[in-house]
Amino acid sequence: MEEEAQSFFDSAPPLRCRDDVVASVNRFLDIWKAASAIGQTTRIAIVTSGGTTVPLERRCVRVIDNFSSGSRGAASTEYFLASDYAVIFLHRRQAALFFSFANGDATFVKYFLEDLCSHFAARCRIIPYKNAVLQKKLLKLEFTTLFEYLQILEIVGAAMKPVGRHAMFYFAAAVSDFYVPWNSMMEHKIQSDDGSMTMQLAPVPKMLGLLRKHWAPEAFCVSFKLETDVDILLKKARSSLCKYGMHAVVANELETRKNKVVVVTRKVEMVLEKGDCSDIELPLVNCLVAQQTMYLQQQQA
Amino acid sequence: MEEEAQSFFDSAPPLRCRDDVVASVNRFLDIWKAASAIGQTTRIAIVTSGGTTVPLERRCVRVIDNFSSGSRGAASTEYFLASDYAVIFLHRRQAALFFSFANGDATFVKYFLEDLCSHFAARCRIIPYKNAVLQKKLLKLEFTTLFEYLQILEIVGAAMKPVGRHAMFYFAAAVSDFYVPWNSMMEHKIQSDDGSMTMQLAPVPKMLGLLRKHWAPEAFCVSFKLETDVDILLKKARSSLCKYGMHAVVANELETRKNKVVVVTRKVEMVLEKGDCSDIELPLVNCLVAQQTMYLQQQQA
Repeated sequence: MEEEAQSFFDSAPPLRCRDDVVASVNRFLDIWKAASAIGQTTRIAIVTSGGTTVPLERRCVRVIDNFSSGSRGAASTEYFLASDYAVIFLHRRQAALFFSFANGDATFVKYFLEDLCSHFAARCRIIPYKNAVLQKKLLKLEFTTLFEYLQILEIVGAAMKPVGRHAMFYFAAAVSDFYVPWNSMMEHKIQSDDGSMTMQLAPVPKMLGLLRKHWAPEAFCVSFKLETDVDILLKKARSSLCKYGMHAVVANELETRKNKVVVVTRKVEMVLEKGDCSDIELPLVNCLVAQQTMYLQQQQA
Repeated sequence: MEEEAQSFFDSAPPLRCRDDVVASVNRFLDIWKAASAIGQTTRIAIVTSGGTTVPLERRCVRVIDNFSSGSRGAASTEYFLASDYAVIFLHRRQAALFFSFANGDATFVKYFLEDLCSHFAARCRIIPYKNAVLQKKLLKLEFTTLFEYLQILEIVGAAMKPVGRHAMFYFAAAVSDFYVPWNSMMEHKIQSDDGSMTMQLAPVPKMLGLLRKHWAPEAFCVSFKLETDVDILLKKARSSLCKYGMHAVVANELETRKNKVVVVTRKVEMVLEKGDCSDIELPLVNCLVAQQTMYLQQQQA
């Protein structure tokens, strides 16, 4: 497993702006350490969000894309911040962002923010967003391809080691299962002939094992299982709990995922429903925060 | 060729809201006919924009996506409207839209539009957009998948027959070359095993022949050829000119496509450069408008 992962990283196209990513993660961690040193230890949630793409050509025209609006990760980030977590938001470029449009880079948004009337600010949750940014409690990192996603995850994962049980990895991103290894990929766009085309895809090495074993062995880890076939969903969720050493797996079915999820841990299966909440992510994040609290108490006991 | 196309349409999942699409195209055409009857014949540009997706599963999680920001089609639509064309804009859902954000459906945009100060409106080109909508000179139709795109194109194509040489098809969309036929597609998400995965893709039937032969034989047709390999680009552009009976093929190379294109017709090859223009689409649309004018004059001669 580790050999496959190493071979993935060795052959991947180098991450652009790698030094910037490392520096921003380190700055974020320095703030956590300083707070920790004076007894103000907050927890850190690493929220991944959106689908990864798998390039089919080196000079990328066609990709395989995993469908994901990124709305789960975006909403969850708001709730983690509200629960006093600092958040590293590792998200698909241009995917749905939390606090609706308040993140936009377009000039008009900046213009608009400056002229904001207060009731409008409150409705769009701009104020909590601005506060999180001002307090340096939010770090946004962007990916598009599977290669970018896993390389950034490795950087963040390894950096979380000193955070111990106070770190929660919340893997809401839809990561590709199969990919075309970079060194077997064609330089130019695949030429179409009259006949059919056959594509050979290799399985993506499982990185969760590396995270649990080497990067941040103490972190509380939550993965997601999305299936269209409800019959195999819970079985698969329980299986990934053991296989990758997750602390919780959130099982959701494609059609009902906005209203209902099942949180599967080694001890319990909790069915969460949206009910009167504005979205399913509110009870979900609350449930996981409580699970992590128990996990922290186990350490102290 | 026609059999393949027929088999594609027969096996495709039925277009949702088909009746709405047909009705809106017919309303658009009625306005053109009324103007035409009183001698105010304007031209109609059908601008396709953005990439199509090819679903890999029936309950769609994974897709093959053709990279395209949709910015070419969006900018060109603005210039066609400015050149007094009525425009049918067949675009990828959520792709870049013309007139920057003025099309947004979000509540804040509506709120914002109502409170607009005039210099801001002018800068964002909201006023020409609102005028085009008010004058019913702009019809927007949305697609995501290849199936949706080709079914809508068939409706629009057939409807353009009475417009004759006054119609221009401007195929800026990046349409998939290969697809998984709907009836050979798995119902559920493809299960991943430990081994590699092999995908069999069929070539997408070429619809341009149908357009030229049956749907709207007199329309002025412009297709685009995008390649990463500049050596084969012009050869391919010339070949599609003959193969599909296009009136012009716009050849562009992936890396330089924002600054330079070559318009290839049966008589000439015109190299267009951005120069002092705000974008390459301005000289491109102007060039094609002039080509269509000559095409109209040939008829009168």
